[in-house]
Amino acid sequence: MAKKVITFGEIMLRLAPEGYYRFVQAESLGATYGGGEANVAVSLANYGMDAAFVTKVPKHEIGQCAVNSLRRYGVDTSYMVRGGNRLGIYFLEKGASQRPSKVIYDRAGSSMAEATTADFNWDEIFEGADWFHFTGITPALGDNVAAVCLEACKAAKAKNITVSCDLNYRNKLWSKEKAGQVMGQLCEYVDVCIANEEDASDVFGIKAAGTDVTSGKLNHDGYKDVAKQLADRFGFQKVAITLRESISANDNMWAAMLYDGNDYYFSKKYPMHIVDRVGGGDSFGGGLIYSCLTGFEPQQTIEFAVAASCLKHSIEGDFNQVSVDEVMKLAGGDGSGRVQR
Amino acid sequence: MAKKVITFGEIMLRLAPEGYYRFVQAESLGATYGGGEANVAVSLANYGMDAAFVTKVPKHEIGQCAVNSLRRYGVDTSYMVRGGNRLGIYFLEKGASQRPSKVIYDRAGSSMAEATTADFNWDEIFEGADWFHFTGITPALGDNVAAVCLEACKAAKAKNITVSCDLNYRNKLWSKEKAGQVMGQLCEYVDVCIANEEDASDVFGIKAAGTDVTSGKLNHDGYKDVAKQLADRFGFQKVAITLRESISANDNMWAAMLYDGNDYYFSKKYPMHIVDRVGGGDSFGGGLIYSCLTGFEPQQTIEFAVAASCLKHSIEGDFNQVSVDEVMKLAGGDGSGRVQR
Amino acid sequence: MAKKVITFGEIMLRLAPEGYYRFVQAESLGATYGGGEANVAVSLANYGMDAAFVTKVPKHEIGQCAVNSLRRYGVDTSYMVRGGNRLGIYFLEKGASQRPSKVIYDRAGSSMAEATTADFNWDEIFEGADWFHFTGITPALGDNVAAVCLEACKAAKAKNITVSCDLNYRNKLWSKEKAGQVMGQLCEYVDVCIANEEDASDVFGIKAAGTDVTSGKLNHDGYKDVAKQLADRFGFQKVAITLRESISANDNMWAAMLYDGNDYYFSKKYPMHIVDRVGGGDSFGGGLIYSCLTGFEPQQTIEFAVAASCLKHSIEGDFNQVSVDEVMKLAGGDGSGRVQR
Amino acid sequence: MAKKVITFGEIMLRLAPEGYYRFVQAESLGATYGGGEANVAVSLANYGMDAAFVTKVPKHEIGQCAVNSLRRYGVDTSYMVRGGNRLGIYFLEKGASQRPSKVIYDRAGSSMAEATTADFNWDEIFEGADWFHFTGITPALGDNVAAVCLEACKAAKAKNITVSCDLNYRNKLWSKEKAGQVMGQLCEYVDVCIANEEDASDVFGIKAAGTDVTSGKLNHDGYKDVAKQLADRFGFQKVAITLRESISANDNMWAAMLYDGNDYYFSKKYPMHIVDRVGGGDSFGGGLIYSCLTGFEPQQTIEFAVAASCLKHSIEGDFNQVSVDEVMKLAGGDGSGRVQR
Amino acid sequence: MAKKVITFGEIMLRLAPEGYYRFVQAESLGATYGGGEANVAVSLANYGMDAAFVTKVPKHEIGQCAVNSLRRYGVDTSYMVRGGNRLGIYFLEKGASQRPSKVIYDRAGSSMAEATTADFNWDEIFEGADWFHFTGITPALGDNVAAVCLEACKAAKAKNITVSCDLNYRNKLWSKEKAGQVMGQLCEYVDVCIANEEDASDVFGIKAAGTDVTSGKLNHDGYKDVAKQLADRFGFQKVAITLRESISANDNMWAAMLYDGNDYYFSKKYPMHIVDRVGGGDSFGGGLIYSCLTGFEPQQTIEFAVAASCLKHSIEGDFNQVSVDEVMKLAGGDGSGRVQR
Amino acid sequence: MAKKVITFGEIMLRLAPEGYYRFVQAESLGATYGGGEANVAVSLANYGMDAAFVTKVPKHEIGQCAVNSLRRYGVDTSYMVRGGNRLGIYFLEKGASQRPSKVIYDRAGSSMAEATTADFNWDEIFEGADWFHFTGITPALGDNVAAVCLEACKAAKAKNITVSCDLNYRNKLWSKEKAGQVMGQLCEYVDVCIANEEDASDVFGIKAAGTDVTSGKLNHDGYKDVAKQLADRFGFQKVAITLRESISANDNMWAAMLYDGNDYYFSKKYPMHIVDRVGGGDSFGGGLIYSCLTGFEPQQTIEFAVAASCLKHSIEGDFNQVSVDEVMKLAGGDGSGRVQR
Repeated sequence: MAKKVITFGEIMLRLAPEGYYRFVQAESLGATYGGGEANVAVSLANYGMDAAFVTKVPKHEIGQCAVNSLRRYGVDTSYMVRGGNRLGIYFLEKGASQRPSKVIYDRAGSSMAEATTADFNWDEIFEGADWFHFTGITPALGDNVAAVCLEACKAAKAKNITVSCDLNYRNKLWSKEKAGQVMGQLCEYVDVCIANEEDASDVFGIKAAGTDVTSGKLNHDGYKDVAKQLADRFGFQKVAITLRESISANDNMWAAMLYDGNDYYFSKKYPMHIVDRVGGGDSFGGGLIYSCLTGFEPQQTIEFAVAASCLKHSIEGDFNQVSVDEVMKLAGGDGSGRVQR
Repeated sequence: MAKKVITFGEIMLRLAPEGYYRFVQAESLGATYGGGEANVAVSLANYGMDAAFVTKVPKHEIGQCAVNSLRRYGVDTSYMVRGGNRLGIYFLEKGASQRPSKVIYDRAGSSMAEATTADFNWDEIFEGADWFHFTGITPALGDNVAAVCLEACKAAKAKNITVSCDLNYRNKLWSKEKAGQVMGQLCEYVDVCIANEEDASDVFGIKAAGTDVTSGKLNHDGYKDVAKQLADRFGFQKVAITLRESISANDNMWAAMLYDGNDYYFSKKYPMHIVDRVGGGDSFGGGLIYSCLTGFEPQQTIEFAVAASCLKHSIEGDFNQVSVDEVMKLAGGDGSGRVQR
Repeated sequence: MAKKVITFGEIMLRLAPEGYYRFVQAESLGATYGGGEANVAVSLANYGMDAAFVTKVPKHEIGQCAVNSLRRYGVDTSYMVRGGNRLGIYFLEKGASQRPSKVIYDRAGSSMAEATTADFNWDEIFEGADWFHFTGITPALGDNVAAVCLEACKAAKAKNITVSCDLNYRNKLWSKEKAGQVMGQLCEYVDVCIANEEDASDVFGIKAAGTDVTSGKLNHDGYKDVAKQLADRFGFQKVAITLRESISANDNMWAAMLYDGNDYYFSKKYPMHIVDRVGGGDSFGGGLIYSCLTGFEPQQTIEFAVAASCLKHSIEGDFNQVSVDEVMKLAGGDGSGRVQR
Repeated sequence: MAKKVITFGEIMLRLAPEGYYRFVQAESLGATYGGGEANVAVSLANYGMDAAFVTKVPKHEIGQCAVNSLRRYGVDTSYMVRGGNRLGIYFLEKGASQRPSKVIYDRAGSSMAEATTADFNWDEIFEGADWFHFTGITPALGDNVAAVCLEACKAAKAKNITVSCDLNYRNKLWSKEKAGQVMGQLCEYVDVCIANEEDASDVFGIKAAGTDVTSGKLNHDGYKDVAKQLADRFGFQKVAITLRESISANDNMWAAMLYDGNDYYFSKKYPMHIVDRVGGGDSFGGGLIYSCLTGFEPQQTIEFAVAASCLKHSIEGDFNQVSVDEVMKLAGGDGSGRVQR
Repeated sequence: MAKKVITFGEIMLRLAPEGYYRFVQAESLGATYGGGEANVAVSLANYGMDAAFVTKVPKHEIGQCAVNSLRRYGVDTSYMVRGGNRLGIYFLEKGASQRPSKVIYDRAGSSMAEATTADFNWDEIFEGADWFHFTGITPALGDNVAAVCLEACKAAKAKNITVSCDLNYRNKLWSKEKAGQVMGQLCEYVDVCIANEEDASDVFGIKAAGTDVTSGKLNHDGYKDVAKQLADRFGFQKVAITLRESISANDNMWAAMLYDGNDYYFSKKYPMHIVDRVGGGDSFGGGLIYSCLTGFEPQQTIEFAVAASCLKHSIEGDFNQVSVDEVMKLAGGDGSGRVQR
Repeated sequence: MAKKVITFGEIMLRLAPEGYYRFVQAESLGATYGGGEANVAVSLANYGMDAAFVTKVPKHEIGQCAVNSLRRYGVDTSYMVRGGNRLGIYFLEKGASQRPSKVIYDRAGSSMAEATTADFNWDEIFEGADWFHFTGITPALGDNVAAVCLEACKAAKAKNITVSCDLNYRNKLWSKEKAGQVMGQLCEYVDVCIANEEDASDVFGIKAAGTDVTSGKLNHDGYKDVAKQLADRFGFQKVAITLRESISANDNMWAAMLYDGNDYYFSKKYPMHIVDRVGGGDSFGGGLIYSCLTGFEPQQTIEFAVAASCLKHSIEGDFNQVSVDEVMKLAGGDGSGRVQR
């Protein structure tokens, strides 16, 4: 029987000019839907898991479009609450070469940002669930939503459900101080932590020496150190850190490291020609949860998660549209891109 | 020298599925910009007038797109204020046959909705101006914006600038009671009033017997009565009432009436096959202002305004993209649509 | 609790040039999915019912796209079988004015056309179901599929599930003789029969005098007669007949009649400006099933079904994307198409 | 063996905004190719005739695109000459309702406008030909091209090839006086003349009383008179006159009359909902030539030509994409637009 | 006078999502046409040769589209047979970075797959021909089609027409054993053989040591060995082997080797940034045939063929849209991609 | 107060197939507007300068579209003259990998090419201006336009306005001899000269040893020599030379050198993955003028100009759509392309 995973967060309307057009040139905008935890849910549904996404969306058609975008890929939307005033929006301009991608958020006042603990019945939602996932973006939406997160974490722990969190710091949503305080409280309930070095530093002030994220150079020992500090402080069973080297908006190197409390497992490193970078980290989370629930060995776990997210970078939209077979094939070594007939 | 017209209100990002697709089917959304008073400004710029639009938009690229959409057609945007958090949005689904068009507003918290009197220097804005126009939507955005409207009206009157107002009642924005109170105060400063029968009834409780807007039947005597009541109560020099008969989402009849305090002038009635109905009323306002500033006779005035807005219904987007020549030709009687080579 | 409806048939990839382009002009083809019974399932899911669609699709991505197209709108796809070689295809060219729409079928050898009784476990499928629906297209796919239909009908009857059938004769799939023989057998199990006059004549040789479908003239007494003959021969509880008058590819009149064994109920007649005519009959079936399961009175039943299908003609694609509220509003008399803000 | 028809004229790049967008709104332009005589050649190739189009196009890729647009539909392009500087262009904006379609020509200096008698070997071109067709647009391109026309007409006559001419007056290209003089000379060689009332009046000053083309009213007796005057003056064997009533840019009535020197044959009149009106007259010419070469009776001839051109109005682009069967079906009376499966 | 080349095989409808969209994301599919031998014919027509493509397509409009796609580029389609039930289809999803392109074939039951020797009169087809080309895909369609191939080969030999064959093994169509048996018989008539290392191994079990196609490493000595074995076994005059190194779905290295029975000629190697990889091998075949018929020296022959196919990888669709001049310029050393004004 | 810059030249309609499609494949063409000096004006307006573009365009809608394309981005179009017959056109096919981009000009007979000194009142235009810019393309349009250039240069000098010129040799427009003669005269008035090595050689016969532009190798000493020769011959205050290394149509290296009469300043060199290469040189000119008018130091000047034009290569269309902040950020060293949220 398929494992059941619950993810909780905001899903937004994503509006993006076609191709490499800039905002000021666009006469139409691609309209898709996404958000950290929703993206993870789609990844898992595509792997055949029983993934449910929990959020609050407005009752009108735009809210319904967000629901449909998830149903289309098999995500269970029966716990999604209807109400509130609007669906959060983000505008995305795809970068190229030296020109970076640009995101403009328009999410204030969204149904999810105004959700409260009264909106969700976690006992019912967690019935039969194996895993609960959220990211640092969700509690950043406001104290009301952080309170929902806390309630969810407690309910999950009470049912012995594994809890994972992607730190995902967003400086437009809250200060580092506030983030550190709120996330510190939530991390008490977290078993598996996902981060990149910036997150650990921004949220908890945990730094690794010798790494400058804009320089593109990475320091493996530093990452080990960050992972260990995180695990030691919060008692995480696992810490996974993604390693991105940004050569240009088109070309990135991608790898990751897993710390299981004992050892450090570094994945292969992939040179990626990027189609769409947004949701890259979420697809890593999806791969990691799948691997853990499937019982992969640590090295296999990190290879699967990295291969999955490497493939995501070749796919338009927030969602990772790949199967277990496709990830396995890449993790197994075939990145030649030869036509499959 | 071209006459100078100032219009004041909100400009929004309009997001609409292509053709007759419903919201739930759309994978991309046409992204244009519009709003009652902005639409009037574009009409006037297209007629060769010196039209300036006053509003407040956020500093980011989406706000800039709104500015550019107006500059493109020659509207003076130098009085537009930058600041605030977001650009208002409206989603538009085009109806067909018995299925009505649908508008979903997402305008709360917009830069304009949070603008205050401190944002605008009306003495500077009205320097050399001949006309000031706003609609009932603008004060409905909030007491703060109503206060700006009042200040603008007073400044206009102090400079002997003609003031026009399109009542344009929006029940999603305020109650009839509130509308009646605020608009009543503003109408003291208005010289030219534009309305449809519903507006007069919704805002001021002024009704004409025997007309049911959903039945598609119109009552000319009733309209005369409404116009006279409006003029008598507020001292309007002119009252123009648009007469729409809705046969289906594709087919409407369109006409209007002008009351100049003495006589009632009914325009020709046009059977319209609709391309885009939004902005139809605004294009009437633009035609009316042009006619008045150009010194047309009353019958010519109403014929020009109706022909202009009839043409608008054949044009995609909020803006009326027609020249004086094109309007004159239709007002002069050629609605045969024969190819012009 | 929502009523549960099972529909059974083929879902195809629909490939259609954009707008009014002819096949020989098309450089791209809109790719949607549809088929008589799938369309009914989407209608019902959009009305909030628990609708499941049963079919067989190939295991590859194109088959998955068909599944996703239904999941997106909330149809239960858990009974869809994977296997076989291909997804049936139909090419659709939209007509205009005097030029008719054109359909080219490419469905031979499809997974569904080669499905057998071994593929479906009707006892499981019908667990908790209230209604079973199929059309005359499904048994026409081949003797193997007709055998599945028969098995399904028997299983439905054994569980006291209401069975409806839309006769839907397709001369490309089978002869009138064959159709009459197979459908005659299946109709023994049918409670609610949907047809147009051509169907009754083509399948069962039941004719009404004085009607020529290409002339656009309809004969109400003839329709009564056809309905009564059908009910008398097969013991149908209800017979619904759709009445289409084709003025041109763009303009049709649309109405229907319901016979409940006692009386004949004629709906209002709608003049339709057509956006997409395909799936019009299926949307009538969806409206009828909803009405019956909701317990509407006969006149309300036929008005709902006709209003629902009238709206379908204004919507792109096979699926009817309307809510109960929208249908109710039109059935209640507002076909003016005025903008809803 | 298929009849061989030679047509001679200019083919242009047609640049048109999508749908009903105005020029000033367009960010992309549909790029197709067309021109009076090229359109006739495509009509005939689609009917299975051996149609060759003669012109001169530049050697670059845009010229090649024009060649390819004709080859694609089976037109023989082996007599097309390469050279000169540019391909003529016309910009087309599609009208709607009361807003007329608009054509902007940018054809000066085209390869064809600068072609001379040295470019064409008519003896070779006419080898085995049955019919030669040109329009009044071609000699209007300049004295050099008029000289080529004259040479072609003489060569055709020398080989007993039937010559047809569509008068097609274009006031942007030449004056009425010049047109009358040049066309008068060419018409000496013409057997079959095609015109609308405006053409006869503009080119030869031949008028029918009581017809006002912008009023939409037609006067049948007047048309008879015009046809007879034309035949009497130039000795035409046949004169065909198209009868368009323009209700709006979307809706036209369409019919025609044939005079064979003895009798007047009026076709049925079709109410058309227009998809693309450009090339409507050319498709009439194509239908007429097909009918004549096939040996249809006069009434059948005019019905075929009118049905063919009625269908053209439902098709995007200059070319008439219909088969003989489709035309026959409409001419035979089925204009109901019912789906063909 | 242009050389005449006959190619024989299947042409399919190619349906591909735009850009890098996956199948499950696509709402429309680009509709083009292609197939190994059709692609070669277009290459040759674009080089100015007299290329005819022989196949069987259904009589309906989709079949006609395939004909038109070839006529558009000047291929002689007069030997194409009409009949049968359907046009074969292939679905193509373009890969990116580590994600491979994916092809789903839906070609069973196509008109061509059911063609028989009765459909083709090779004596007539080969009248005046200089070259006959087919690929291993064609006999793989079925014994009936293999029989046609054999008949064609014999007829070609009887007229001293050069015969070329691209081995092109497709494991979805037949087993290696079957392929070896049928192709072995056909190769008796072949003068020029085109292959990649996989083909030689798959079809005839001829292997070169030390090459792993998924590793991207190539072994030049191995290729020499394969070519010699092929020539020795079947008496080929020339064997050409393409050498692809797949770095990713976006980046490939491309080169080839020609063996003329005496010497081995290796081309330059091109690093390619891929726009569309499908048809790459066919464009090599087209370049090779052109070179041979033009009488190029061996080194020039292989350089032309490789440069031609290098350019193909920069072009959308199956067909190679390049001129002799463009190929010559690249073969001559200018691969800098500088703008040509 | 913003600096005022006047640029003078031709603006053309740019027609380009989408993505990497070749001309012969295109069914629609993106329609944007551009031209050397217009592109510079947009660059400067985007930097917040008061930029006016001077030219002549036809009175019709296509001419208006060119005006609107500039107004949209804030360029002052009040000095644009209306008249003449047509807007110049250029067709652009985007290259990929080894396939070069291709430009077909269709600009003969344009309104601008036929403009005369009577069309422009330079005293009025230069009122309050700080800088005047033109390119070598403008005088190449004809002696009449060269005369306007000369008049403009003289008027600028009389007002102490800085004059810049980008040599920009176009061999389709004039011979090297003619160019040398006319440009030599104009350069007497020029203060700042922009060139690439080819320009200096083509126009003035000034060559640097050891550089072969198609080989992709650059010789820095040679460039110094060219700059010095140019400055010595014409007395330029500054000479800026762009250094492009063309690896393929997708990948270029980009840098530049500034000579200020004393020293040579080489910029960083950027590896660019190209989105649209057209307008690259113009964006360099825009960056250079901004830097000079802002008073940047020489090294900062060349870094800003190169970073600005590097970013241009990542943007669709002729215009450089970047802000001062974006250029500064890249010039300051962040080319990592990391997402900006």
